[in-house]
Amino acid sequence: MNTLGEYFTFTSFGESHGRAIGGVIDGVPAGLHINMQLINQQLNRRAGRISFEENNSTHLLVERQSKGVSTRAQRETDEVEWLSGVMDGVTLGTPIAFIIRNRDAQPEDYEWLKHSYRVGHADKVYQEKYGIRDYRGGGRASARETASRVVAGSIARQLLEEKNIHIHAELVQVGNETNPARFEDYISKIRQEGDSIGGIVQCTITGLPIGIGDPIFDKLQSHLAFAVMSINACKGFEYGSGFSGITLKGSEMYLSDDQQLISGGIAGGIADGTPIIFRCVFKPTASNRQTLEALFDSLMNTYSANNQQVIAGGASVKVGRHDACVAVRAVPVVEAMTALALQDLLLFDSAKH
Amino acid sequence: MNTLGEYFTFTSFGESHGRAIGGVIDGVPAGLHINMQLINQQLNRRAGRISFEENNSTHLLVERQSKGVSTRAQRETDEVEWLSGVMDGVTLGTPIAFIIRNRDAQPEDYEWLKHSYRVGHADKVYQEKYGIRDYRGGGRASARETASRVVAGSIARQLLEEKNIHIHAELVQVGNETNPARFEDYISKIRQEGDSIGGIVQCTITGLPIGIGDPIFDKLQSHLAFAVMSINACKGFEYGSGFSGITLKGSEMYLSDDQQLISGGIAGGIADGTPIIFRCVFKPTASNRQTLEALFDSLMNTYSANNQQVIAGGASVKVGRHDACVAVRAVPVVEAMTALALQDLLLFDSAKH
Amino acid sequence: MNTLGEYFTFTSFGESHGRAIGGVIDGVPAGLHINMQLINQQLNRRAGRISFEENNSTHLLVERQSKGVSTRAQRETDEVEWLSGVMDGVTLGTPIAFIIRNRDAQPEDYEWLKHSYRVGHADKVYQEKYGIRDYRGGGRASARETASRVVAGSIARQLLEEKNIHIHAELVQVGNETNPARFEDYISKIRQEGDSIGGIVQCTITGLPIGIGDPIFDKLQSHLAFAVMSINACKGFEYGSGFSGITLKGSEMYLSDDQQLISGGIAGGIADGTPIIFRCVFKPTASNRQTLEALFDSLMNTYSANNQQVIAGGASVKVGRHDACVAVRAVPVVEAMTALALQDLLLFDSAKH
Amino acid sequence: MNTLGEYFTFTSFGESHGRAIGGVIDGVPAGLHINMQLINQQLNRRAGRISFEENNSTHLLVERQSKGVSTRAQRETDEVEWLSGVMDGVTLGTPIAFIIRNRDAQPEDYEWLKHSYRVGHADKVYQEKYGIRDYRGGGRASARETASRVVAGSIARQLLEEKNIHIHAELVQVGNETNPARFEDYISKIRQEGDSIGGIVQCTITGLPIGIGDPIFDKLQSHLAFAVMSINACKGFEYGSGFSGITLKGSEMYLSDDQQLISGGIAGGIADGTPIIFRCVFKPTASNRQTLEALFDSLMNTYSANNQQVIAGGASVKVGRHDACVAVRAVPVVEAMTALALQDLLLFDSAKH
Repeated sequence: MNTLGEYFTFTSFGESHGRAIGGVIDGVPAGLHINMQLINQQLNRRAGRISFEENNSTHLLVERQSKGVSTRAQRETDEVEWLSGVMDGVTLGTPIAFIIRNRDAQPEDYEWLKHSYRVGHADKVYQEKYGIRDYRGGGRASARETASRVVAGSIARQLLEEKNIHIHAELVQVGNETNPARFEDYISKIRQEGDSIGGIVQCTITGLPIGIGDPIFDKLQSHLAFAVMSINACKGFEYGSGFSGITLKGSEMYLSDDQQLISGGIAGGIADGTPIIFRCVFKPTASNRQTLEALFDSLMNTYSANNQQVIAGGASVKVGRHDACVAVRAVPVVEAMTALALQDLLLFDSAKH
Repeated sequence: MNTLGEYFTFTSFGESHGRAIGGVIDGVPAGLHINMQLINQQLNRRAGRISFEENNSTHLLVERQSKGVSTRAQRETDEVEWLSGVMDGVTLGTPIAFIIRNRDAQPEDYEWLKHSYRVGHADKVYQEKYGIRDYRGGGRASARETASRVVAGSIARQLLEEKNIHIHAELVQVGNETNPARFEDYISKIRQEGDSIGGIVQCTITGLPIGIGDPIFDKLQSHLAFAVMSINACKGFEYGSGFSGITLKGSEMYLSDDQQLISGGIAGGIADGTPIIFRCVFKPTASNRQTLEALFDSLMNTYSANNQQVIAGGASVKVGRHDACVAVRAVPVVEAMTALALQDLLLFDSAKH
Repeated sequence: MNTLGEYFTFTSFGESHGRAIGGVIDGVPAGLHINMQLINQQLNRRAGRISFEENNSTHLLVERQSKGVSTRAQRETDEVEWLSGVMDGVTLGTPIAFIIRNRDAQPEDYEWLKHSYRVGHADKVYQEKYGIRDYRGGGRASARETASRVVAGSIARQLLEEKNIHIHAELVQVGNETNPARFEDYISKIRQEGDSIGGIVQCTITGLPIGIGDPIFDKLQSHLAFAVMSINACKGFEYGSGFSGITLKGSEMYLSDDQQLISGGIAGGIADGTPIIFRCVFKPTASNRQTLEALFDSLMNTYSANNQQVIAGGASVKVGRHDACVAVRAVPVVEAMTALALQDLLLFDSAKH
Repeated sequence: MNTLGEYFTFTSFGESHGRAIGGVIDGVPAGLHINMQLINQQLNRRAGRISFEENNSTHLLVERQSKGVSTRAQRETDEVEWLSGVMDGVTLGTPIAFIIRNRDAQPEDYEWLKHSYRVGHADKVYQEKYGIRDYRGGGRASARETASRVVAGSIARQLLEEKNIHIHAELVQVGNETNPARFEDYISKIRQEGDSIGGIVQCTITGLPIGIGDPIFDKLQSHLAFAVMSINACKGFEYGSGFSGITLKGSEMYLSDDQQLISGGIAGGIADGTPIIFRCVFKPTASNRQTLEALFDSLMNTYSANNQQVIAGGASVKVGRHDACVAVRAVPVVEAMTALALQDLLLFDSAKH
C-alpha cells in the first residue's frame, strides 16, 4: 500500500500536518556516500525554492523553465534526519530510515473548508474510504509526501549514475505554450489572474542497458507508467510516438528516419539501448483562487445565516498556498519516481541473470 | 515476471509457436459457473473472427467499428482446455489452469526474416536479452499471448459483474478519424494500401464502489496504466482530462459543468463512485506490407548474391498475417486487462477492511 | 496461495482426482539442458517405485533405508508433459509449464468415507473452508501434489548443482529406530500390523556460499522451515543443535569441538560457509488399516441399519493405498522444497549485490 | 528483506548502536485506540524489566517462570515515539511509523572483541556478507531489534483480540527442567556459574476461526514457523505431536483420546477451530562468561605480546550484558511474531472470501 518496489523498496509514511513525513529505503548496498547536495537540490526544486541562478550553476539542471516560477511565498525547510542505515553519510547496507519534520502547518487557513468538499480534491473519497477526512491539506494525499519520494529517488539515482544511467526531466509545455523561453512569463500571468494551468513534463533516460524490462506484464513502459501515474495531478503517460502517433500511418512511422523518436527507446517492453523518452501531463491545480472563490460563494448561498458567519469567519477567503503550475515542481518528482522504478527493475534483472 | 496481480493472480505461459499457450488463475472462489460464452465471444473478438451481426446481437458489444474489420483471412480456433480448478464448468476454489493449443503456426512465412531484424519489432532486444531470437513470430512477445489474458480477464470480469461492476471498451479514433460510422471503410482502405494505422480505445468502468484505490503508490490510475501499458503496441494511457486537458485553465476546468469528464471518476488515486473513463493509444503495426517490402529491398541490396538467393527463396515476399489496425482486436484485451487489475484491487481492498 | 518464491517462482495446480496436476516454473534462464533422468529418478523415489538396486546405482542416492520400502502395490506412471518453456529438452528462458496426467484414480475405494470425516485428515476443515469436500483423496491436500514439487525442485537443483551447491536428504530415524540397517525390516513389520510409523529426515546442503540469508526476517532457517513445513505430515523443523540442544549448557555447547554440528551451518540467519544440516519429522499416516477399521466400526455403531448397509457395501473395509512410513517417500520432497527455497534465495541475493 | 507480511506488513529498521530502532506498520485500520499499556508491558517483559508482582497483576501474564529471572542489572528505557499514523493514541489508517531511541550503548565493553570473531555469533558472516562488521553488539543482528517487533506485534495482537483471537506463550522447559516452579532457581544457579542454558517456549492460540491457512505452500504451520524461526537463537519449531511424536505408531496416535494434542489444532495446513499449540527451542546464549573467558585466554595465547596488552587493556574481561536464559525474554517476542503472522494471514483470508 505504502511501499513501492519489490527488490529496491521505498516505504513512505507521514501525514502532511502530523509530526513528520519520512520513509524507509531497503536495498541500498553498504558503502555508498550519500550525495546530500543532490538530495537538497532536488528538495529545493520540489519546494519551488530554487532560483534561476542556482539551477543554472549545476550540470544536472537545464531548466530555463523553472526560472523564478516558485509560487510559494514562504520558505519551507526540508531538513532530512537520518534515523538508520547511514553513518557519517555512508550507507551501512541496512534499511535507511529518514524523516523530514513538518514545521509550517497553518491549519487555520483551511478552517472554512470544514464545511465543504473541494471540487477537484479527494476530500469526499477520503471521507467515504476512511470515515475521516483531513480537510487541512489532504493528509496523505498532500503533495508534501512527494518530498520523501525525492529523498529516496535521489539515492536510487545515485546508484543508477554509478552505472552511467542518467535521468533528466524538464517541462516541455505549459498550457498551449511550447516555447520554454516564454514559460516563466506565462505562468506569472496565470498566477496574477488567480488561476492555474497544466503542463507536460518530458523525461529522458540515457545509458540504460539493452534488455531491461520483461516481455509480458513487467514491460519497462508498464513500470514507468505505474510510477509516474502515482504522482499527484498526473493525468496521462505516453512514450515514443505516444498519442500524437495516431496521425501517422505505419508506412510513415516505420520508414521515418527517426525510429528512436517513435520507439521511445523501448521494443516489446524491453529497453533497446537508445535513450528512453516519455512524457506525462499534469492538470492545473484546483486550489486556485478563482475556483476557491466560486466554491466560497456557493457555500455562502447554501448554508444558513448562522453557518455563513462561521464560514466567513476570517472576513476573507484564505486559499492556502497554491501553485499556478504544479508541473514545475513535479519535475524532480518525475525524476525521483523514474529512478525508483529503474533501480527496482535493475535489481530484478540482475537477479535473473 | 509472468504473473500479474498480488491477490487475484494470473500467470501466463506458452510460446506462440510452441505446443500451447495458457495460464494459471489463482484467487477464484469455489462455485462460480464459468461463462464459456463470454470467453468465446471475447476470444473471437480478439482473433478478429466476429462479424458485425454477432457483435450486434449481444448487449455486451456495441461496436459498429468492428464491423467486418477482421483482417485475418484464415480462421484460428481458440479452444480452451481446462486442466484444473474447474469441474463441469464450475470452479473448485483451487488454481485454474488452462491451455489453448497452437494449431496454425506457419513458420516458413517468416523464414527470410532470419536474416534481418525487423524495424518496429523486438527481434533485436530479444537476441540481446536472451541470446536467442524467435524470428517466426515474436515468441512470448507475440500478440497470441493475449488470448490467455482474454480467458483470465473474462473470469475476472464475471466476478466483477456479480458485484455490478461493468467494463466496456470501444474504439473511438482510427488515425484522424473520430466518426465510428466511417471506421470500417477507413481501415479497409488502409489495408488495401498494404499499410497500417493506429487507434485509440476508450474504456468505461461503471459500478466500481467509491474508495477503491490507494492514496500513495497504489493509485487506481497507476494500476490501470500498468495493466493496459502491458498490451502490445500500446504507447500511451490517460484518464479524465488526460493530455487534452493541457489546453484548459484551472478556472475553466473546475468550474465546468462536467466534472466527471475531467476527473475520469478518480480523485486522489481513489474511485469516486462515478464512471471511470480512460483511453489508450495503439500504434500501427510494423508488419504491414509496405514496411516489409522496404525491408526486403534493403536486405537484397545489403546481402551478397549468394544470400540474396536464400532470402528471395520463396520467390516473393511473404509478410505473414497482419492487421491494418491492431487497435480493433485490442479492444477485448483492454477489457481483460482492466478486469484483471480491478479484481486484484477489489480483493486487496476487501483484505484491508 | 499456490505460488512459492519471489524471484524463482513455482506455481502448483491440479487436483489429485482431476485431469492432471502440474505447475509453472518462472525464473529459469535460457539454455539449461533439463536433466530428465534426475526428474524421473526423484519422481520414482517419491512414488515408492524405486528398488534398492536402482537406488544404489546412482551417486545421488545413498539410501539403504529406502530398500524395498515401497508400500504401494500398484505402479503409478508419472510422465511429465512439457507445455511451454522447453524445446528439445532445453529451456527457452520463458515460463516452464508442465503437467502430469492423473491415470489411476480409484474413487470407489473411498466411497464409504462419504459418511465420515477421517481422523487425522483435513476432510473437516475443507468442508468448512471451501463448502465442498473431496472425500476421495484429499483434492489439493493429497500427497500427489508433491509430484509437481519434485519436478520443479529437480530443475532448481540442477541450477544449484551448476554452482556446486548440493542437497542430500536421508531418513535418519524410524520410530525409535536410529540404525538405518534396520529400517526396512522395521517398516515391513509395521505394515504387516496394518499400522504406520513416523520418521525423521535429515537434509545436508553443501557448497552454499557464505552470506546467503538475511539477518532480520528473511533468515536462511526461516525460509527452509517455511518450505519444509509445507510438506504433508511434517510436524517439526530444527537445525544444528535443534531441540536436543536443550540439554546442553552454553559452556558445553560453545566450547565443544564440533561447532558445525551445533550451528548447523547458519549464524545470525546467514550461511556461514559450512554444510547446512537440518531435520524434519513426519508423523505416521492416519490412513493405516487399524485406524480405518476403528473408524469403520464406529460408523457402523453410529449410523442407522439402512446406512450401515450402504457403508458396508463393498463387504469389507477398503482402506485405499497407504504407506507404512510416509517419511520414506518424503525424502525427495524434502530435497525438492530445499532446492526451491535455496534457488529463490540465491536469486534474491544476486539481486542485491 | 526487512519487511514481514504481505497484507499486514511490518518494516523494521535501525542499528542497535545507532540513533534509534523502529519500524513502519502498514495495514492497521483507522480508529484503533492503541493499547499503550500492552505495548509497555511486552517491552518490559522483553527487556527483562518486569518483576513477579507486575507479571502476576495482569490477566495477560501467567508466568511464574519469569519470576525475578531478569538478568539485566541495568534498566533500559524503551520509550516509543510515534512519528505517523497515530493521533492522540488513535490510528489514522495511514502507515504507523515509530522509533525507540538507543540510549545506553556502551561500545567500550566490546572493544577487545575487535580482535576476534566470537564463537556462536554472526560476526564472521557479517564481515563476509557486508564487508563490514559491527563488533559492538551485532548491529542489525542484535536482539535489541526485537523491541520493534514487540511494538508491531502488540498492535497486531490488539486487532486479533478484537476478533477474540488470543495468543499466550510461556516457558515450558529450561535445560532438562520441566517444572516451572523450579525455573527461577535453576536459572539463578546457571547465572552464578557464569554459564547459560536453553529453553523451550510453548505458544497457544485460541479463537482462531476454522479455515485460516492454505492447503499447499501457505500452510498455517509454514507461516508460524517462518515467523518464529526468525527470532534470534531459535533453533527449532514443532506443532502438535512434533518431534516427540516419533515414538508413537499411527494406531496409538489416532486412536488416542487427545487428538487436539496430536494435531496441534491444524489439519492439512488449515486451522481446525481448536487451540493451536506450537513449541520452539532457544539455544543458550554464547555471550556467557565461561565462553568469553575461554575466548579471551585463547586470544591471549594467539596474539603477540604487543596485542595482548591491547586486548587486556581494561585489566579484566568485560563480557557485556548477558542473559543466563534468553528463552525467558523471548516469550513476548514469540507472541509478537505469532500475532504478526496471524494478522497477515487473516487479512489474506478475508481478501479471498
